Order: sequence, then C-alpha cells, then structure tokens
Amino acid sequence: MHAHPPFSHPTAQVQIDLAERSYPIVIGSGLLGNAQTYKDLPRAATALVVSNTAVAPLYAAKLTQALQAHFARVLLVALPDGEAHKDWPTLQLIFDALLENGCDRKTVLFALGGGVVGDMTGFAAASYMRGVPFVQVPTTLLAQVDSSVGGKTAINHPLGKNMIGAFYQPQLVVCDLDLLQTLPARELSAGLAEVIKYGPIADMEFFAWLETSLDALLAKEPGALAHAIRRSCEIKAWVVGQDERESGLRAILNFGHTFGHAMESGLGYGEWLHGEGVGCGMVIAAHLSQRLGRVDLAFVERLTTLVRRCGLPVRAPILSVGDNAGRYLELMRIDKKSEAGEIRFVVIDGPGKAAVCAAPDAVVREVIDFCCA
Amino acid sequence: MHAHPPFSHPTAQVQIDLAERSYPIVIGSGLLGNAQTYKDLPRAATALVVSNTAVAPLYAAKLTQALQAHFARVLLVALPDGEAHKDWPTLQLIFDALLENGCDRKTVLFALGGGVVGDMTGFAAASYMRGVPFVQVPTTLLAQVDSSVGGKTAINHPLGKNMIGAFYQPQLVVCDLDLLQTLPARELSAGLAEVIKYGPIADMEFFAWLETSLDALLAKEPGALAHAIRRSCEIKAWVVGQDERESGLRAILNFGHTFGHAMESGLGYGEWLHGEGVGCGMVIAAHLSQRLGRVDLAFVERLTTLVRRCGLPVRAPILSVGDNAGRYLELMRIDKKSEAGEIRFVVIDGPGKAAVCAAPDAVVREVIDFCCA
Repeated sequence: MHAHPPFSHPTAQVQIDLAERSYPIVIGSGLLGNAQTYKDLPRAATALVVSNTAVAPLYAAKLTQALQAHFARVLLVALPDGEAHKDWPTLQLIFDALLENGCDRKTVLFALGGGVVGDMTGFAAASYMRGVPFVQVPTTLLAQVDSSVGGKTAINHPLGKNMIGAFYQPQLVVCDLDLLQTLPARELSAGLAEVIKYGPIADMEFFAWLETSLDALLAKEPGALAHAIRRSCEIKAWVVGQDERESGLRAILNFGHTFGHAMESGLGYGEWLHGEGVGCGMVIAAHLSQRLGRVDLAFVERLTTLVRRCGLPVRAPILSVGDNAGRYLELMRIDKKSEAGEIRFVVIDGPGKAAVCAAPDAVVREVIDFCCA
Repeated sequence: MHAHPPFSHPTAQVQIDLAERSYPIVIGSGLLGNAQTYKDLPRAATALVVSNTAVAPLYAAKLTQALQAHFARVLLVALPDGEAHKDWPTLQLIFDALLENGCDRKTVLFALGGGVVGDMTGFAAASYMRGVPFVQVPTTLLAQVDSSVGGKTAINHPLGKNMIGAFYQPQLVVCDLDLLQTLPARELSAGLAEVIKYGPIADMEFFAWLETSLDALLAKEPGALAHAIRRSCEIKAWVVGQDERESGLRAILNFGHTFGHAMESGLGYGEWLHGEGVGCGMVIAAHLSQRLGRVDLAFVERLTTLVRRCGLPVRAPILSVGDNAGRYLELMRIDKKSEAGEIRFVVIDGPGKAAVCAAPDAVVREVIDFCCA
C-alpha cells in the first residue's frame, strides 16, 4: 500500500449553498442512530422512511428509533430493490403510504438506501402535495458522493433513464461511513467510479491522492472514505452552487455518463450498475477527448489504470451484433444533454478541466469500435 | 340589465411578479391564431401542443399554424377529456409523445384546454427532463381566471384530488376571449364561481361590479368578460406574488374549495364540475363564517343570491345516507390544507377579507346539515 496523508476529522460537514434551498451534508461514523443528527429538521407529526427490501432489514429500525425522538409517528415503506423498479408503479407505493396514513404536507420523508431510493424519494417529496421536506440517508458510496447531492430526482421512462423528475433539494444529507461496511465489493467499486470522476473534471491533486489511497478505500478504511466523500461532495457542491438547474457548467458532472447511460439502457437496466457504466464510459470519453486533441494518451492510460484497479470494466459492451456504434449513437441521441438531435459530450480539456462539445459521428464511431470488447 | 361601467381596453396585460419566474398574462380577442402572441417565447426546434379530444378539433389547427412561425416542428397530443382522466396513465401519454419524437429539454409545451389540460401539461412540463418551458392557453373561463395563473400543477390520486404535482410557472398565459364563445353555459357558470370568489376574499367593489354586470357576463359580452378576467388575475397575482408556495396567505384562494372538494370527490370526480363545488362550497363556507361570528346573515344571503343567479347549485349534495356530515368531515380531513388531522377552513372575516382557521366539528356539522338538500 502506498503512503497517504493522515486523516483527522472523523465528522465533517459540507455546506451546499443554494440561497434559501441551502443544506448541510454531514459525513462521519455513528450518525444514523444518533437522534442529534436530526435535531435541526422542520417540526412535524410524521416521518416516513422510504427504503428498499434489501436495506430496510439492516438499518430501518435504527433510523426509526432515532427519529422517534423528534416525530410522534414514524412510518416505513420498503420498495422492491433495483433500477428496474425505478418507475411509476413503484413511486405510487410512496404516495399510497402517504395518503393511506393521512400524511399532511409537513410530513418529512427520509430516503434510506442507494441512488434509486434517493431519486424516487426525492421525486415523491417534490411532488406530494406539491412538495414536502425530505432527508437523504444514502447507504451506498455512489449515493453518498453523487446522487444524494445536488437535488436531481427522477424516475425512468421505458424510453429513457431519469426522464421524469424534478430539481428538488433535501433538508439534510447524512453520510454515515458505518453503512458502507456492509456494502458489497461490486457496489463499492461502482461508487468509486463517481469519486474518480471528480479528478479529471476538476481536481488532479485529488486524482493523485486517489491513486495513492485506492487500496485504503477498497479496504473501506473510514478515514480514507471520509476524505474521498468529503472532497467529492465539495467539488459537486462547488459546481451545483454555480448552476443548480444544469443550464451550463453542471453538465460536466456527467463525464462518462453519456456513454455509460447508453451501456446501461442498451444492456437493459440492472445488467450493469450505474457506476460500472460511468467507469467504462469515462474511459471511452477519455479516448474521445484524446482523438479531439484535448488530452494525450498518457492521461487516457492513467485514467484507465485507476478505473481498472477499482475492479470496474474498461472494455465497453457490444450492444448490437449489427451496427454496434450506430446503436450507441442512437441511444445517446435521447440523452437529456442532446439538443435538436446533436449529442453533447463531456470531454476532458486537459487534465483537471472539463468541457461540453459536439463530436463528428465518424470520430465517435472510431472510439466506440476501439473500446468495445 | 343593470348599468355597468364602460369597458375600454380590449387587450390587457397582467404581470405575475415572481422574480426570475415572472410572466405575463395577456387578455383579449384574436390572440390564439396570431403569431405575434408567441414572439417572445424561448427559441426551440419543437413545440408540443397538449389538448383534449373535445378542444383539439376546435382550436388546435389555429394554434399550430400560429406556432409554425416560431417552431420548425409543432406536434399535437389530444388527451381523453375530463377530470376522470387527470391521472398518471393519461399524463404518461404526454411523456410518450415527447420521447417518441425525441423532444429535447428546450421543447416548449402548450396547454390548450381547461383546467385539467393545464394542470396536467404544467406537471408534465415541470417533470419532463426535470423541467421544460410551457405556455397556458386556457379555453374555459375557469382556467383563464384561476387554474392557469399561479403555477399550481397536479394530477389526482385515487385517494385525493391534486395530490401529486408541482409549483411550476408558465412562460406566458394567453386568455383569448373568443374561445369562450363556444363554451357551454354550464362551464361558463362554473368559471364564474371562481370569479365571484375574488370578491368576498379581497375586493367587495369588484363583488358589487359583478352583481351589476352578471347578465352581461352570462351573455358573454367581451368587454365584461375582459374586465372580470383581468380583475380576477390581478387579485390572484397579488396574492400569489406574496406567497408563491402557499405557506400562508395563498390559502385564502381556496375559499369554498374545502367543502367543494369534498362534494367533488364524494360524488365521484366528474359528477359536479369543479366550479359547481366551489360555488356551493362558498355558500357553506359563508354560513360557517357567520356561525363563527365573522360576517352577518345579510352577507351570506348576498353571496348566495349571486351564486344562484349564475345558475350554480346553492344546496349541498347528500354524500352519505348514514352520517352525512361525518362523511364530509372525513373527506375534508385529507385536504392539503389540513395539518395533523385538523381541517383548516377559509372563512370570510368581514366582507372583502379572508382568514384561515379551524372550527369545532359540532359547528361544521350544523352548517353542513343546514346546507344539505
């Protein structure tokens, strides 16, 4: 294992600065079951914990107990697990629970789970009675560093991922490091893809730190995890604070996502984890950046190596036995960043800086052909 | 017919002042088919007109033609007509049209129809790719004076009306008086209920003008309609400008609605028009105000008379052959204004001023028993 800088503060706080929609992210150990964690939330008679059938048995009782210090009634709804259920019928289960229990519009929702639970609970909170408060309690690394920060909520449509949703900010994000100890290795790796992302787009010092500290992260060393989460959230907060509704800069956070989403939807949701698509997507996007003259091959190699060390795929899947690159292009054209059918790619414009641009189909095809297994 | 003040400006504009979400309401004749009406909208490749099967045959071609001056592609989706279809499967038809046609997030949606079309199109616009621009082109009086102003969008849940939605402002509201000429008398009356509402809660001079001008309004005299719509929008704009998200003052716009919603849902959506529930609901709410000592019986009589002159019901329907008042209370407890099971009633606190308060169940029961047929 390489040496890495010492980690000091076990509990950190990152403030997301969005005027009257500002909120804190707290990062540390032992937060979930501590009633103090929730003391500054709006007062209400009822809290509804939304989780899934995999996470609820592990953590719902602990959260419920802590919340009972603040809410007279704490309800629980456990959704079916997985991206395949990120749809309207499943969202409806949340609305059913709220209405069947006579929940008013002060009710506070708690998203206890990964990105899918967070996105769905957030959209339910945005839409129930046109908006109730909610709290993110992410239980995966990916959700802690990405989906729980920035206020994007959504469900999938059969024709596209995250097509129906809202920008809606939580009151609080609780990143409890202890929850990552039960996280399967594959999901840890998927989360690391989003952590790595922040290097090429914004902070190559952080990237170098990741190269040094990857073994500590894979071993779930709390100090290393705390630093990785904190720095990821800081960078995301900095970007989102400048462009809450993704009219410009914020799109750089989608580095690797345009290719990644195509893989996820082309393979069928649930086949690859989101982070696996992003990891492999970053490798393709780095190659595209290189072909467009924005970075050199050494950078592409360096990124590919780090992605591979995480245990993430670096060769892209074949999505069609016919015109495979054409299938990728077709899937990417319905990406939300597309405008009038033109795909907008996030490229690395020199290590540590991202840009959004179009690219000739021929070049994109070359890169896809080169990267496919 | 009584004398009424002369009407001058055939085209008026009311500005809704909500910082970066501000927008104009234009009121006049000949607006729908005039390309100039839409000249200041954001540029986009595609416009999607959302209408219903009753309205589309009358007006969709005219709107489409005008929009073709600004958009390369103008699409149309006609939803099934009626409150019974204000649900998720019908909303999904809008998302399907958007995705099947590869619509990007600059696409502008146009709501061409009454309150149901406006609420659904608004919620679709709020949610598609987390928000695209939209325009309200209300074709009923009710939608022109109420549902198209203020940014409330929603669909119904089997357990409650407008329970799932968003606060989302349009770019523009186009109130074309010509469209009201094809409006059935019953729908005109339903719209007048919302017009009358603005008197007791905010402006008794306007109420007196309505008493004088009601025959002109029922005869669809354009000058009278223009004034009624303009003043209604001005009052609503004034209220919404102070409380966009209904944390306080805005609730007064729901005068008559708590009882009205109970009638609508108790009878089954679609049985009574929304405006009929509101008209009758205002009569009950006025009686409640009187029992609580806030207004005298003369005021209750004056309001009842005007509601009756519109052709609206002033006797409340029986919702249960058993405990009828109990059924009303049960239905009202799931109103969005309720807090921890306590119903919040909008009462008239002296003519021209509204307040929100709780009321003892016994008094509410008395009033319901008194007002039921």
